[in-house]
Amino acid sequence: MPYVTHRKVRFQHCDPAAIVFYPRYFEMINSVVEDYFAEVVEVDFRAMHVERHVGVPTASLDTQFHASSRLGDDLEFRLEPTAVGTTSLTLSIHVHCGDELRLSCRTTLVFVDMDSGRPIPWPDAMRQRLVSELS
Amino acid sequence: MPYVTHRKVRFQHCDPAAIVFYPRYFEMINSVVEDYFAEVVEVDFRAMHVERHVGVPTASLDTQFHASSRLGDDLEFRLEPTAVGTTSLTLSIHVHCGDELRLSCRTTLVFVDMDSGRPIPWPDAMRQRLVSELS
Amino acid sequence: MPYVTHRKVRFQHCDPAAIVFYPRYFEMINSVVEDYFAEVVEVDFRAMHVERHVGVPTASLDTQFHASSRLGDDLEFRLEPTAVGTTSLTLSIHVHCGDELRLSCRTTLVFVDMDSGRPIPWPDAMRQRLVSELS
Amino acid sequence: MPYVTHRKVRFQHCDPAAIVFYPRYFEMINSVVEDYFAEVVEVDFRAMHVERHVGVPTASLDTQFHASSRLGDDLEFRLEPTAVGTTSLTLSIHVHCGDELRLSCRTTLVFVDMDSGRPIPWPDAMRQRLVSELS
Repeated sequence: MPYVTHRKVRFQHCDPAAIVFYPRYFEMINSVVEDYFAEVVEVDFRAMHVERHVGVPTASLDTQFHASSRLGDDLEFRLEPTAVGTTSLTLSIHVHCGDELRLSCRTTLVFVDMDSGRPIPWPDAMRQRLVSELS
Repeated sequence: MPYVTHRKVRFQHCDPAAIVFYPRYFEMINSVVEDYFAEVVEVDFRAMHVERHVGVPTASLDTQFHASSRLGDDLEFRLEPTAVGTTSLTLSIHVHCGDELRLSCRTTLVFVDMDSGRPIPWPDAMRQRLVSELS
Repeated sequence: MPYVTHRKVRFQHCDPAAIVFYPRYFEMINSVVEDYFAEVVEVDFRAMHVERHVGVPTASLDTQFHASSRLGDDLEFRLEPTAVGTTSLTLSIHVHCGDELRLSCRTTLVFVDMDSGRPIPWPDAMRQRLVSELS
Repeated sequence: MPYVTHRKVRFQHCDPAAIVFYPRYFEMINSVVEDYFAEVVEVDFRAMHVERHVGVPTASLDTQFHASSRLGDDLEFRLEPTAVGTTSLTLSIHVHCGDELRLSCRTTLVFVDMDSGRPIPWPDAMRQRLVSELS
């Protein structure tokens, strides 16, 4: 079952054409991934980055923009893991406004020790949560 | 021959791990595309957006992040068109710091009438410039 | 009575010191002003900018940063109008995390016709709502 | 003599009215302060933040926005120190486009040990450079 959350298109997201400037979609997506880790994986970004010196930088990102989003739109983000590797996680993300698909994205994150900059295996508890969420 | 330009990694681009937060790469890439249109295609974004009510929104974006970039890094952006369609343009972008490849990206833009929101054919002069730059 | 709302400090707001990079506070403040207009003044930014071609650009901004905010902090924004001019609005904004004051700000907005770029008087309905909210 | 540098108004800086969204001015100002430290004070932000774990967070910021800036504008930033305290630095910043004043700002930074979060005195070499630049 996908994780579902919403973001409103704000003034700060919009370009001179009054539509979302695409780098702002990735700020929204990052905040959705942040909520997913806090609420579903149950390890928040503060605990990861500040206390444990680990992180989940993005390794790849394949995105299609299907239709523009406008100031004031209510966007629904659907996120689900599609693969859990030893050190990686692949997520599928779909963004709708009402029935209209706006953006679809497939992204792979890597679990990294921020001190060494190197990938490390998911801790068992995180891995089990992620695997249990696989679609 | 690719179009080459540089961007410095600034404080505003960096996350709590002191590496570039990936949406900031897309702000840099957008500014590089902006310079490419102004300098190579010879139609700047102000003329497009403000005077002619046309734009080049992104339709797709496939990105690999090969290595992290850090505060103060001097990044070299190499951009070259790989396909020119009736209404679209595909660009290949590589970002290096010294010899190290940091990011590679393939993106397709669409030439759009901003009033209707619909794709329109490239004007002849723009199309000829783009085609002459094909690698 | 002040208008009160909350924002969470996200990864995208934080700098290499893992504290809020100050321009991000102003993105948050702008989104709070956006909600204030939609919920209290009952004219949202989409109606203003897209339908009526009016806006509320910032004319001045005086800010004190009292203490740093960190990744994951829950910030409370308190906003209240302190003066309503013919074409202007002065707001007082205080940001707390728990009992700790993080930021205080006094800002003046101007009601502007976006086509001419010139200040215009507040419409009666908006003016009455703003005056009734004066502290 | 003030430190002078330029920034171009880019697509990423502009809002649905095709003028600079004010938090983007502070990103530009921060990058100008970054260049000032690297070029005039001769201590760059990477050395400060990554190697020495010190920083210069903003303590206060008083800004007047005199006129709007538009996509493609070439902005001139003039920065000069007006006071150097034991742990603080006050800067006066003026932004022009051609002859037109767009923004004036007075900001106070504090030299901080990022591990403790506490102000510390400027090292002698930095202090001497700053004092020699006082207008």
